Amino acid sequence: MPDANPKPWTETTIVGKSIPRIDGPEKLSGEAKYTLDQNLPDMLYAATVRCPHAHARVTKVDVSRAAAVPGVRAILSDADKDCNIPWYRGSRLFDPHCRYEGEEVATVAAETQQQTWDAVRAIEVQYEKLPFVSSMVDALKPGASKVQDGGNIVQPNNFSRGDVAKGFAEADVVVEETFQTSCLLHTPVEVHGSVAHWEGDHLTIWDSTQFPFTTQAGVASALKIPLSKVRVIARHMGGGFGSKIDLSKYTVLAALLARKTGRPVKYCLSREEELLCVGNRPAHNLRLKAGVKKDGTLTAFELRGNSEIGAYPAGDSAAYLVRELYVCPNVKTEEAPVFINAGQSRAFRAPGFPQSAWALEQTMDTLAEKIGMDPVEFRLKNISMVCGVDGNKPYTSIGLPQCLREGAKAFGWTEARAKAKRDGPIVRGVGVASGMWGYLAPPISTAIVRFYADGSVNLNIGAADLGTGTRTIMAQVVAEELGVPMAQIEVENADTGTTQFSDGAGGSKTCMVDSPAVRTAALEVKARLLEMASAQLNVPVADLKLAGGEISGPGGNPKVAVGRLRTLQTQRVVVGVGTRAPHPADKAVRPFGTHFAEVEVNKRTGEVRVVRMLAAQDSGRVMNLLTYRNQVLGGMTQGIGFALTEHRVLDAGTGKMLNRNFHDYKIPTAMDVPADLTVLPIDPHDTEVNSTGTKGLGEPALVPAAAAIANAFYHATGVRLARAPITPAAVLEVLNAKRG
Amino acid sequence: MPDANPKPWTETTIVGKSIPRIDGPEKLSGEAKYTLDQNLPDMLYAATVRCPHAHARVTKVDVSRAAAVPGVRAILSDADKDCNIPWYRGSRLFDPHCRYEGEEVATVAAETQQQTWDAVRAIEVQYEKLPFVSSMVDALKPGASKVQDGGNIVQPNNFSRGDVAKGFAEADVVVEETFQTSCLLHTPVEVHGSVAHWEGDHLTIWDSTQFPFTTQAGVASALKIPLSKVRVIARHMGGGFGSKIDLSKYTVLAALLARKTGRPVKYCLSREEELLCVGNRPAHNLRLKAGVKKDGTLTAFELRGNSEIGAYPAGDSAAYLVRELYVCPNVKTEEAPVFINAGQSRAFRAPGFPQSAWALEQTMDTLAEKIGMDPVEFRLKNISMVCGVDGNKPYTSIGLPQCLREGAKAFGWTEARAKAKRDGPIVRGVGVASGMWGYLAPPISTAIVRFYADGSVNLNIGAADLGTGTRTIMAQVVAEELGVPMAQIEVENADTGTTQFSDGAGGSKTCMVDSPAVRTAALEVKARLLEMASAQLNVPVADLKLAGGEISGPGGNPKVAVGRLRTLQTQRVVVGVGTRAPHPADKAVRPFGTHFAEVEVNKRTGEVRVVRMLAAQDSGRVMNLLTYRNQVLGGMTQGIGFALTEHRVLDAGTGKMLNRNFHDYKIPTAMDVPADLTVLPIDPHDTEVNSTGTKGLGEPALVPAAAAIANAFYHATGVRLARAPITPAAVLEVLNAKRG
Repeated sequence: MPDANPKPWTETTIVGKSIPRIDGPEKLSGEAKYTLDQNLPDMLYAATVRCPHAHARVTKVDVSRAAAVPGVRAILSDADKDCNIPWYRGSRLFDPHCRYEGEEVATVAAETQQQTWDAVRAIEVQYEKLPFVSSMVDALKPGASKVQDGGNIVQPNNFSRGDVAKGFAEADVVVEETFQTSCLLHTPVEVHGSVAHWEGDHLTIWDSTQFPFTTQAGVASALKIPLSKVRVIARHMGGGFGSKIDLSKYTVLAALLARKTGRPVKYCLSREEELLCVGNRPAHNLRLKAGVKKDGTLTAFELRGNSEIGAYPAGDSAAYLVRELYVCPNVKTEEAPVFINAGQSRAFRAPGFPQSAWALEQTMDTLAEKIGMDPVEFRLKNISMVCGVDGNKPYTSIGLPQCLREGAKAFGWTEARAKAKRDGPIVRGVGVASGMWGYLAPPISTAIVRFYADGSVNLNIGAADLGTGTRTIMAQVVAEELGVPMAQIEVENADTGTTQFSDGAGGSKTCMVDSPAVRTAALEVKARLLEMASAQLNVPVADLKLAGGEISGPGGNPKVAVGRLRTLQTQRVVVGVGTRAPHPADKAVRPFGTHFAEVEVNKRTGEVRVVRMLAAQDSGRVMNLLTYRNQVLGGMTQGIGFALTEHRVLDAGTGKMLNRNFHDYKIPTAMDVPADLTVLPIDPHDTEVNSTGTKGLGEPALVPAAAAIANAFYHATGVRLARAPITPAAVLEVLNAKRG
Repeated sequence: MPDANPKPWTETTIVGKSIPRIDGPEKLSGEAKYTLDQNLPDMLYAATVRCPHAHARVTKVDVSRAAAVPGVRAILSDADKDCNIPWYRGSRLFDPHCRYEGEEVATVAAETQQQTWDAVRAIEVQYEKLPFVSSMVDALKPGASKVQDGGNIVQPNNFSRGDVAKGFAEADVVVEETFQTSCLLHTPVEVHGSVAHWEGDHLTIWDSTQFPFTTQAGVASALKIPLSKVRVIARHMGGGFGSKIDLSKYTVLAALLARKTGRPVKYCLSREEELLCVGNRPAHNLRLKAGVKKDGTLTAFELRGNSEIGAYPAGDSAAYLVRELYVCPNVKTEEAPVFINAGQSRAFRAPGFPQSAWALEQTMDTLAEKIGMDPVEFRLKNISMVCGVDGNKPYTSIGLPQCLREGAKAFGWTEARAKAKRDGPIVRGVGVASGMWGYLAPPISTAIVRFYADGSVNLNIGAADLGTGTRTIMAQVVAEELGVPMAQIEVENADTGTTQFSDGAGGSKTCMVDSPAVRTAALEVKARLLEMASAQLNVPVADLKLAGGEISGPGGNPKVAVGRLRTLQTQRVVVGVGTRAPHPADKAVRPFGTHFAEVEVNKRTGEVRVVRMLAAQDSGRVMNLLTYRNQVLGGMTQGIGFALTEHRVLDAGTGKMLNRNFHDYKIPTAMDVPADLTVLPIDPHDTEVNSTGTKGLGEPALVPAAAAIANAFYHATGVRLARAPITPAAVLEVLNAKRG
């Protein structure tokens, strides 16, 4: 039985290096097959009639004209009993009560994608329009139209520690501000989609999903078939960011249409459907009150918040950082998610955390200014070295002080702060913000390494690679332990039919959950190879070394090429199975990070330009410097979108989305992102979290970015713009108001 | 670490029952995808120009006209440097020296299969015809044309024990006869074929192969790419019988054409190509001399033999039974395979053994008659209870005496023998013959069982299912140990990309090699489930029982449904990995069998009709009574073909095959096989061979069949027809000769 918790590496030769993606050539050449590229013989296409109103009841669906459209092979609507599948909160697959613009009303399968669109237009639907609410402010008004029968407020989420009244009484300075963030839309490069294919009673689904095993479970449950009959494959992916965690209706619809027609069905969303329906980061209203003593000791935080979660339940607390990041004896947070008639929110890169940082880290800035402390020093003074929300457990490691210190040094914080430009039409300032990321208890996952007689390796893991480089990193772990060239390692992943369970690629946990399992599996293979060599060379295992495809005894003799191991030649392959040891029960695990930003504000146009940013991240060991950098650059980029450009716009008069395309919904382009982005990895040499020392990077790399930009905006302008995004119109409004 | 050698079953509830194939519905409905059914988008088809002469040298290949045929996308010939791939004995992929009718000269890929045939006809090839030999008699004549440079005789294969001269001197009776068997062609229902598909530098091959891992290794070696880059899939198969063990050229050609065109290529042989090229059971000439004392003690066997192995080396000894089946102190066997200009021989259901039985078991019949003993009694007296060719090791079990005794009783041997009809135009007689089967050391294989939280199971094994029911039997083992309904078990097999190594489905070893591995894997899952239940119920593992989806304590309490195990709910799946323990080193492993046949011979037409047969088989435990019966019925049926109808005919004038279709090459039809076929399983309760007590059934079920029919023919007619097949013409010839 392999040791599930081997000793951490002391030095590495392949892990940690800048190694290009093993699937880079495939992707660059167009050979890589994404779900959209999956074409099967006799495949049909699908498209859906979606409710065009913010709130309506379907009173009639007439598919007769659509059925006559050339190429149409099947139409599904609420009239089909196969479609009586429960969905969110007592609704069903085609619920006649449409609670947001974009809800599914009927779906067609046809020979070509064009024919599906013709058919969609030919389906006649009668709607009874209902009153709607399209903002949390409206939804909370007395007598507001109800999105869900139970009312518009979801079960509040409250937390309390100490006595905030006492805390504020003890404070020398108390500040209070309402921070607002906008609804941000999921925009993965690859749209959502599934291809469904039945062979007898076996269903195979190619799906662009972060959690193939969740899709498998959801589809099996929806169709009432055993898990073992559903195979979900997610080989290549163009991003997910949380929107591809949950099962979506299109996957089930593809499976139903394929079953009804006896043919494979591809159903990929259009970009417009993507923006309307696949989820979003909810807007938050966060009233944050904070107290501090003159010496910089925090005395109390009180947060009251609402979030606009759309038409169906979704959790997205923005209180995490307030509760945990800093030492503060008195904390109270009260949050209530609010339903509105719009697409529902879903997990989105660090759900709630960037919103939390937006409020907390701007407040920390204000407090520091009020007591005359440097913002970096003020944060350093207050960092909590134990996990205040989890029994004050120490962290397995905490590199946050290093992030602040080394980040400030590398950024030239003190100098830049001193050189801020406050005069003239274009002003300049710098800002800092910290963050962290916390996960649910990560599950056990299993990895299998197969070592072939010719020295090539097949690695089998359950996790999807969203484009983050998971396959490459896992192959590095194998290469590290077995001395096999990267080019000889094939990674088979994210296929519920052939790979082992993994909870999925989300929550920044893929690397921390799977890399230790891969390492254990590789070490088991190594142990087996050394045993074979020991028997063949008549040298004790302990005296043998595996390197460069050879196993050798003390001083290099005797030796044998791995390919010449007789037992291996006979059995052709050695199989190693590895699982991850659980986290130590008496420790908390968190990655941390601090971002620094410098911005210029054009006071005449209201434009804000990020001049440069630096991200110091503590995510434990750097597995691959190249993928690490890319993750952090992506985090900063999304932070710029959060801070400056992105927000869903719903029309007040109709409740319909006004910016359902990439022209009107503005994600940062190359013109909006500075060339001067610095990534500073901080490795606290965590020997307790797991055998690879990794803590997860995807989400923490975004968390503080927008808050750092907001603080830099304040530093440049002297005006706090508490509502994101900081658009030119909003900037001009506050600057004009200041001028009076 | 699971125990690789758990205690044998004492009783079973699912194993041993008549359970229909788990993939039966798929196959009957046509949903099951065989290699021929594998269609990929943009797939091309392939076809090959084959040498039309028995022996020739290619002097020119002009593809210019063929390249202009509509739809042609690639043509490969010996001119392409990619085709410089070594093949048998120093020849290469397109060897200009064509040693048999059907050797590959050039291959095309085109948009449709019809276009490939047009292109094949348009390729202009010039041949220099060479002298040929089309029988071993001709090949052994002085000055015969050489098939291979080294001459026409392959390295002889000799064996000797004791002193045969002394043995014959001690004998009371010595008999000697030349037995001849014909060349039998491989006729699996599904023709040979491959579909090759490149994605970047990854090659996937769907192949109708018994040994996917051998195909993987062969293709990787031919194309000089790592094993991990080649994935071979063989999901459903329509038979193999040994012809689908070795790598064939068409597989490599499909891969080369796919690489050259950048498109998937399907290459399936026509039935004519199948009969010409994919292998055969070689014809044997066997001169067997035997001595016996009056009391029935065997004193000596001397065998001299030749076999017609075609144009390339292949081993096929017919001496096995002579050396091992009976106690005989003096044995000498000398065999020399002979090259001729015809398609090469290949493994064919018990290679050499039916030929061996044809000579030995007819000789045993003659000896019994000469000394006036009943043939059953004579055999019983001489059965060797130890393995004479392997250091006189005892067998793990030997049910052969039971096969003879219980078979004779069930067949009504004594009565039927007494009632033989020797008068009139239609005579009737009965015959008996025994056999066994011996394997090479079976390899280790690995099985993986994944148990899902909903109680469904995924079983992962490397072995192909040729149509024998392997998937069903292995699922039964899982069902037996885990109490899961058969319908909840999915079997993933024979995919080098996703399943573990297995040596392949050949040599009757799949069941004996893989079922113990599957059992160990299932037991590991069971152990993990019991551990979970133990922790949850607070009951020691030893006191817990898993049955019917529940784990319960003593007397049924406390209990928990497997689906309610909290740890399972969290980790979703339990993975068990199992390997097979090696055979006990001090024992020999053999399955045995005895067949009884009753035949009628029409002395006016020469027709021989098998009236009934009974096969008593000792293959260890019966895993599934239904698949067991089918295997044995198939064995008897092929035995009828061997004895009465099948033989390749080469034209003496041209060396070309005259019966290259199912009209002229006669395999038994329903009209040739009696309804009265009895299968009598003999289970010696082998507790030593492995943890499932299985010894392999596929090949032994054929071995004695033809010899039993030949003995019945003798019993009916009083004439020994030593040459197979016993055709009407041959029968009339010997009967006329007897009449004088």
